[in-house]
Amino acid sequence: MASSVAGPEIERLIQLLSKLPGLGPRSARRAALHLIKKREALMTPLADALQVAIAKIEVCHTCGNIDTQNPCTICCDTRRDPAILVVVADVADLWALERAQATRGRYHVLGATLSPLDGIGPDDLSIDALVSRAHDDRVTEIILALNATVDGQTTAHYITDLLQDAGVKVTRLAHGVPVGGELDYLDEGTLSAAMRQRTLF
Amino acid sequence: MASSVAGPEIERLIQLLSKLPGLGPRSARRAALHLIKKREALMTPLADALQVAIAKIEVCHTCGNIDTQNPCTICCDTRRDPAILVVVADVADLWALERAQATRGRYHVLGATLSPLDGIGPDDLSIDALVSRAHDDRVTEIILALNATVDGQTTAHYITDLLQDAGVKVTRLAHGVPVGGELDYLDEGTLSAAMRQRTLF
Repeated sequence: MASSVAGPEIERLIQLLSKLPGLGPRSARRAALHLIKKREALMTPLADALQVAIAKIEVCHTCGNIDTQNPCTICCDTRRDPAILVVVADVADLWALERAQATRGRYHVLGATLSPLDGIGPDDLSIDALVSRAHDDRVTEIILALNATVDGQTTAHYITDLLQDAGVKVTRLAHGVPVGGELDYLDEGTLSAAMRQRTLF
Repeated sequence: MASSVAGPEIERLIQLLSKLPGLGPRSARRAALHLIKKREALMTPLADALQVAIAKIEVCHTCGNIDTQNPCTICCDTRRDPAILVVVADVADLWALERAQATRGRYHVLGATLSPLDGIGPDDLSIDALVSRAHDDRVTEIILALNATVDGQTTAHYITDLLQDAGVKVTRLAHGVPVGGELDYLDEGTLSAAMRQRTLF
């Protein structure tokens, strides 16, 4: 992309925008132009929001969540059930579960899943902290909310082994038909799992 | 998207990112998380680049281009041919032509194309300025580099009418087979135009 048409300042902006997931070089250029055209309505507020985020956002030392307070809002929330720890790979997964209001427990963010191909081993994940939290007497259940992928399930097995003598129940998310899903479009693995884990009507 | 999971600062960042073309609410959340994770490598440089752009970028009073100087680099470039004005609808089109090094002329950015359906009339475009530039004695050719859409061609006809007594040659981009294009995949309109405007081999 040898386009030094627009001066180094704009090129730099385009180059940085193109590093965002979902934006390629072309859409980054379009985004930069959009920002420049909407200087008051969008570019200035975005610059301010980024500055605020840079200044305020921290990683929670307890669970690995991202928040403007540390420990994070969820860890500090006394209405949360201290008996349940929901293990997720990424903050994005935590956000997804919170949007679904899927649990009243607290979280533990691993930071990634085990992936030998990508060189991600146990030391790259927040596993020691999880094991130590699991030994807390108040914790009775660890819910492994990990992706139903090979890496996710490998990680789930690895953690289950480590937690065997922690005196906690280790559970994982159910497999099954997505709500709103049509059987005809589902893969065989999901259908078999949904059949095996069928529930009383 | 009722997700106040992540605190108002992060929600604000997500909301602003989702206004960028190419990013929806979901990808904006992913982009925000990516920025937060890469605070030093990406979020801080992006915030700085936006501040620089806000402070420095101006619209060229002569041609409507966006640059950090006014008149813009292209208008000031004495190696540019003062006889040729290339009319584009948008700065994005100017950038595209510059990337292609398609012309040694200067530009005139209309800001939009005529679009009665969207309520965009002649007064919303930088047409008066174009007509006045066209009357400059040095200008001998106006190249209409407008989209080959209904709106683009309507605008081209409108401008051609206005320039009839300006003593300039008004030309437009050729229609034809895109370089690398396969005939089998082209629409009939393009094929007919390419046949009509065939050139000597």
